[in-house]
Amino acid sequence: MHENGLIPVLNPSRIFLDERSESVTGSVVTAVVEGSRPFLVELQGLVSPTSFGIPRRTVSGINLSRASIVIAVLERRLNLRFGSDDIYINVVGGVDIDEPSADLAIAMALLSCFKNKKMIPETVVFGEIGLGGEIRAVSQPEIRLSEAEKLGFKRVIMPAGNVKVKNKKIEVIGVSNLAEAASLSLV
Amino acid sequence: MHENGLIPVLNPSRIFLDERSESVTGSVVTAVVEGSRPFLVELQGLVSPTSFGIPRRTVSGINLSRASIVIAVLERRLNLRFGSDDIYINVVGGVDIDEPSADLAIAMALLSCFKNKKMIPETVVFGEIGLGGEIRAVSQPEIRLSEAEKLGFKRVIMPAGNVKVKNKKIEVIGVSNLAEAASLSLV
Amino acid sequence: MHENGLIPVLNPSRIFLDERSESVTGSVVTAVVEGSRPFLVELQGLVSPTSFGIPRRTVSGINLSRASIVIAVLERRLNLRFGSDDIYINVVGGVDIDEPSADLAIAMALLSCFKNKKMIPETVVFGEIGLGGEIRAVSQPEIRLSEAEKLGFKRVIMPAGNVKVKNKKIEVIGVSNLAEAASLSLV
Amino acid sequence: MHENGLIPVLNPSRIFLDERSESVTGSVVTAVVEGSRPFLVELQGLVSPTSFGIPRRTVSGINLSRASIVIAVLERRLNLRFGSDDIYINVVGGVDIDEPSADLAIAMALLSCFKNKKMIPETVVFGEIGLGGEIRAVSQPEIRLSEAEKLGFKRVIMPAGNVKVKNKKIEVIGVSNLAEAASLSLV
Amino acid sequence: MHENGLIPVLNPSRIFLDERSESVTGSVVTAVVEGSRPFLVELQGLVSPTSFGIPRRTVSGINLSRASIVIAVLERRLNLRFGSDDIYINVVGGVDIDEPSADLAIAMALLSCFKNKKMIPETVVFGEIGLGGEIRAVSQPEIRLSEAEKLGFKRVIMPAGNVKVKNKKIEVIGVSNLAEAASLSLV
Amino acid sequence: MHENGLIPVLNPSRIFLDERSESVTGSVVTAVVEGSRPFLVELQGLVSPTSFGIPRRTVSGINLSRASIVIAVLERRLNLRFGSDDIYINVVGGVDIDEPSADLAIAMALLSCFKNKKMIPETVVFGEIGLGGEIRAVSQPEIRLSEAEKLGFKRVIMPAGNVKVKNKKIEVIGVSNLAEAASLSLV
Repeated sequence: MHENGLIPVLNPSRIFLDERSESVTGSVVTAVVEGSRPFLVELQGLVSPTSFGIPRRTVSGINLSRASIVIAVLERRLNLRFGSDDIYINVVGGVDIDEPSADLAIAMALLSCFKNKKMIPETVVFGEIGLGGEIRAVSQPEIRLSEAEKLGFKRVIMPAGNVKVKNKKIEVIGVSNLAEAASLSLV
Repeated sequence: MHENGLIPVLNPSRIFLDERSESVTGSVVTAVVEGSRPFLVELQGLVSPTSFGIPRRTVSGINLSRASIVIAVLERRLNLRFGSDDIYINVVGGVDIDEPSADLAIAMALLSCFKNKKMIPETVVFGEIGLGGEIRAVSQPEIRLSEAEKLGFKRVIMPAGNVKVKNKKIEVIGVSNLAEAASLSLV
Repeated sequence: MHENGLIPVLNPSRIFLDERSESVTGSVVTAVVEGSRPFLVELQGLVSPTSFGIPRRTVSGINLSRASIVIAVLERRLNLRFGSDDIYINVVGGVDIDEPSADLAIAMALLSCFKNKKMIPETVVFGEIGLGGEIRAVSQPEIRLSEAEKLGFKRVIMPAGNVKVKNKKIEVIGVSNLAEAASLSLV
Repeated sequence: MHENGLIPVLNPSRIFLDERSESVTGSVVTAVVEGSRPFLVELQGLVSPTSFGIPRRTVSGINLSRASIVIAVLERRLNLRFGSDDIYINVVGGVDIDEPSADLAIAMALLSCFKNKKMIPETVVFGEIGLGGEIRAVSQPEIRLSEAEKLGFKRVIMPAGNVKVKNKKIEVIGVSNLAEAASLSLV
Repeated sequence: MHENGLIPVLNPSRIFLDERSESVTGSVVTAVVEGSRPFLVELQGLVSPTSFGIPRRTVSGINLSRASIVIAVLERRLNLRFGSDDIYINVVGGVDIDEPSADLAIAMALLSCFKNKKMIPETVVFGEIGLGGEIRAVSQPEIRLSEAEKLGFKRVIMPAGNVKVKNKKIEVIGVSNLAEAASLSLV
Repeated sequence: MHENGLIPVLNPSRIFLDERSESVTGSVVTAVVEGSRPFLVELQGLVSPTSFGIPRRTVSGINLSRASIVIAVLERRLNLRFGSDDIYINVVGGVDIDEPSADLAIAMALLSCFKNKKMIPETVVFGEIGLGGEIRAVSQPEIRLSEAEKLGFKRVIMPAGNVKVKNKKIEVIGVSNLAEAASLSLV
């Protein structure tokens, strides 16, 4: 099935994504920009009842403060309770993400676990989240969209504020708050 | 509504602000200076009853010590009690703020949440806060004012000590202490 | 038995491996890449009942966050309980590993201790682990394979997604999840 | 009243000081030297009954260890008890102070709060504090004095060991221990 | 007795070692390599009943994680219990050691204290320790041996895997696990 | 009395020392070397019953680990108990000391407080302390001695291992362990 492991790396985004497991909950693909180079990366969340007294928040590849902000917004704006759950967030491929555009993917990964629903398939998600639960526009949405299209994704869920024209080849879904994103992202 | 997402970034302040949600509490726009370049940025606060024993203070984009100082002053000078609340402070756009001129915006964002009142619309807020609750003058107030004016804001709430002449195009409101700022900032 | 200690170091991988103790549990050899240079390194795990109230996680040579992620996945996906065990993970030779390709070796070292079963001998293990327990492809699998072959190993357990053609001289076993890896790695 | 906010900064010390509030307790002006350039800066202290179990010590602009040393000396040498108080220390203007010459100003700011007495007006304070409560000479006292004089202060409270000749334009008060400094500094 | 304090430093290893106290427990000399330069250094351990609730582990000159690994191995493989002891490890001369070759010296220093037995005199000890309690070969054993010989030591206890030929002037004792090292090192 | 505050700094060691208070306990002068430049500096200790549950150890200018080692040796070798005392250690003049030669001065400062005895006057103290309580030779003892002599001190208490010939102008007292140093240092 996966045949390209030994092929020279033509597209760096590809190697991070070929393995992605759309069949499990908690897996979301996002588009980040490093300098002016876009690449897609898979984020994974894991939410499960804590086995110790103090719930653990362990992250690899994202900033713990940023994760805490996103978790707090999920709790306040979607009335979720993570107080007795351990939360793990992982960026696949050893990549470090340092921009708030990944907020929405973090939120959807955690929500997918919590609700035990999968993400809709073939979809890239990006957007910053504000404390009010609103989805904020991010910089360079164009090159994020192009990268998603180039790698064969069918759909992008992104900030309404970044949506200009419908791209012909890829479906663009603008969302303006967490509740809207949640209802459109999960199957 | 938001059409400029795919337009080349002419004014970097603009992309951080277009999404701002004046209709929710806890959102405040401030003017910071990096080198000699001013830019406007939105700060957001979130205050809500703590779900754990120890109240959490989570910040993204500002210094935690600075936030602690501002919270302490709010408690002592306006007789507020945050002891059983979690507090979150977020700077929109992934910007890191490293000057005390953002103190007043932090304070107003938290106060807006706490009092459940919105900021008056179309307003930029800046000023350092002293431990006595006084609002201190900051450096380069002129270019902060100009930036606010250029981006179409109607009003600036700033340190009385920085107010020289009334700017013709934008209303300038000088404040000298937290109580005064609070009464003039919230609707 | 070990005669090459005073011989000039022809192959840096060799000195780290000659001492490896296949006869004890918790020892696993992995292949890492630094720049474009592959080398083999031994990881060791130690799992034993905690003597204090709080179970200790002490690591030398790998990142503690990464170790926590791997431990969490072992707990959730293989239904193990490490809550009352101290866990120690050691990279032999004072090497620091900074890539997720060592995840699978970490997991197998811990599992070997926990189950009190040895790794199958003459085997190199590599692969990133996702939060779902899936084994993810890693970059540069070819040079990892070559290094294992060059140093006389008989078998490589690696991500199914990295397996292209069966190498003639060394047995290549592709695994796609933790359970599969566990059943094929331990004697 | 404060008219110089929009005037080009002729004297950097001035902008930090114009706002100073001599009418409140806990505010002290000190003279620091960066390289060979002196400047005046306002320190503020806030001492109030702790609202949590563990008294908080929050500082902005000075080193927490240095503050802890000064607090300990105040406790031991002046028989004060801060054990059930939160302590906040703030340097106005976002300045970071990195020399022990600010010790005496920190001590007087805290003492002013604790005793609820104001500093005598128009006064600059500097000096290192030793663990015995003695006030130690600091380097470059001359340029600190000149700066205070230049900015129109009437009085300097400084280490006795740094006092050489009485300056004609500004009153120089040498102090050799904390008790002496306390009795001469507060109104 | 010690006459060379004011003599120009001909051999840097010497100044660290002249003072060593073979007559007390807990003192061990090891050979480290910095770049390609070997030097001998004395490690000291101190193990005594804890006076607080939580046993302290304080180290100077070595890495705390590395010390924790060595302590854990001593506990598991030699059935020692340090749970109610404070442990101190000190490298004499203000040297920082950053290689696992010092593991064996750390272990012997702690064991010497714990068993209240001295090290055999005139002996240098080096070797990495694995989690199984095995002593692992280290890099550049030759220059470590030469340095020990040059400084007049009579004996080296080192990894069996590094022993090639018996050096004529200095006794070389190869050890392959902690128990063996313990029985050969202590008087 | 102190007249040189405004005189250009001819001897940097002098400004740190003119203020020293030989009349109080806990004050010790030591000689450190930075590069090849010696200078004298005053260390101060403060030991007093803890006011909180957990005894505090606060240091300014020295490393906390080093201080912990010295405290532990004092406890074990001189049978002192600091378990219910707060300990403060301060280096006068804002100097950071980074060499173990200051160990003996730290120990004598704490011992002076604890025993409530002063140091013998006009004395410089230096030497590294080993975990056995032995005083170890340090590098460059000559230039330390010369600096003490140049600044008019009458006596140096230093490691026996560094004593070569009696200096004519300054009394040199070699000590080989903590007990000896204690009996010779305190009045």
